[in-house]
Amino acid sequence: RWGKRPWAQRQSVQASSRHSGPRHWLCHIVRVFPPGGRGKKVLIVYAHQEPKSFNGSLKKVAVEELSKQGCTVTVSDLYSMNFEPRATRNDITGAPSNPDVFSYGIETHEAYKKKALTSDIFEEQRKVQEADLVIFQFPLYWFSVPAILKGWMDRVLCRGFAFDIPGFYDSGFLKGKLALLSLTTGGTAEMYTKDGVSGDFRYFLWPLQHGTLHFCGFKVLAPQISFGLDVSSEEERKVMLASWAQRLKSIWKEEPIHCTPPWYFQE
Amino acid sequence: RWGKRPWAQRQSVQASSRHSGPRHWLCHIVRVFPPGGRGKKVLIVYAHQEPKSFNGSLKKVAVEELSKQGCTVTVSDLYSMNFEPRATRNDITGAPSNPDVFSYGIETHEAYKKKALTSDIFEEQRKVQEADLVIFQFPLYWFSVPAILKGWMDRVLCRGFAFDIPGFYDSGFLKGKLALLSLTTGGTAEMYTKDGVSGDFRYFLWPLQHGTLHFCGFKVLAPQISFGLDVSSEEERKVMLASWAQRLKSIWKEEPIHCTPPWYFQE
Repeated sequence: RWGKRPWAQRQSVQASSRHSGPRHWLCHIVRVFPPGGRGKKVLIVYAHQEPKSFNGSLKKVAVEELSKQGCTVTVSDLYSMNFEPRATRNDITGAPSNPDVFSYGIETHEAYKKKALTSDIFEEQRKVQEADLVIFQFPLYWFSVPAILKGWMDRVLCRGFAFDIPGFYDSGFLKGKLALLSLTTGGTAEMYTKDGVSGDFRYFLWPLQHGTLHFCGFKVLAPQISFGLDVSSEEERKVMLASWAQRLKSIWKEEPIHCTPPWYFQE
Repeated sequence: RWGKRPWAQRQSVQASSRHSGPRHWLCHIVRVFPPGGRGKKVLIVYAHQEPKSFNGSLKKVAVEELSKQGCTVTVSDLYSMNFEPRATRNDITGAPSNPDVFSYGIETHEAYKKKALTSDIFEEQRKVQEADLVIFQFPLYWFSVPAILKGWMDRVLCRGFAFDIPGFYDSGFLKGKLALLSLTTGGTAEMYTKDGVSGDFRYFLWPLQHGTLHFCGFKVLAPQISFGLDVSSEEERKVMLASWAQRLKSIWKEEPIHCTPPWYFQE
């Protein structure tokens, strides 16, 4: 199978030649850096109603750039899918473990173990499981994700699949994967500063990046924020699109942020 | 109409007698303090699937205590209503103002002005408009509200109704109303401290209390957090219920929090 991925073999050999331990390097975990993202899998969870929107353009740019690198890109277009955001007993098939009192957390945990979650959840979990990087593309609604994307998080990232107790934060089950929030705001960058009316943008990222993604074990890459869409010119939008495309060219070399309180509240 | 509310008249007269300006006090805005909550209107936006849950009990306790005080209490039971969380073009009736490119923010703002929003949104806006206090009762999902409640915020608190630009934060259109988050967590109170794994609980309240409620002009009362449900005994739950009921007895005398960064990040 190495034959199809010469870059991987070359890279492994290089890693091995620098290795100070035993020469049986195939038995060791070797970090592989393909050129660009060849062989990498990316899932884009996309939450905008309108393909011609700026969010649609950001999604399109990402699909194009990552595909060009040789990544396999999958898009979950939540509005097109009419994705169900509500967490209800419809999410489990078969009998509940407690027919008297319904607890969504308990029932979905049990259903995950018995492979009794509904197929739309199972399908999204499969996409996440395969992905090296998950990009969330959305407009900021009330300092957070739109409800349809919140529903994706509530339903897909269930106990057993994404975490357990214990088994969260650095031990979350999605460790080894990268996540990145790419979002647009109506308000300007100035509004989202420490002394601006809406506070530092890092403040509103805490529940999403720390409380959700880090909780599940993801390493979080710096957010991509396209600010001030309500007041931006066509030219400014082009610059924002180009800067996203440019960033994606070297996305696989990026180091994740330190997803701990100082990043959010002390910089 | 004063005849039915002797306390209001008495209170107004007292206010008037302390007034240093003209004696035509009926022309002035007079703050009225009825005993308990008599005459007050409360909306409880409730997001739990199971009536027998602890969230269900907290909601029930609030309805009972506030009704006993003479409040008019309305409950929006979102799961029972199968409330729609997705923000889509179905939310406007009639033709969109821009048939080529759909912008949810622009279209719902226009539709609000033309009274062309769907009836479920209109009905919730009517309940909010009538309320003196809105209580949100929910279990914490991913450091935030469940998607069904996020959808309520996304769709009901639209531009034109809850705010405009300008017309937000202290000038938000719902100024003069109170809001309170009553939530339950699986994690313990220790986890939600500054040095705990999940950080101070105030951190995750920022997008909800500041970015949403304060943005719309609400004065925010201190949150009611029932911590550690995953590990609490029956006895501890009874104590939490009783403390909520007790707090509600004097809820109308409470001062709102200072909904600014120091409350969230520096205490």
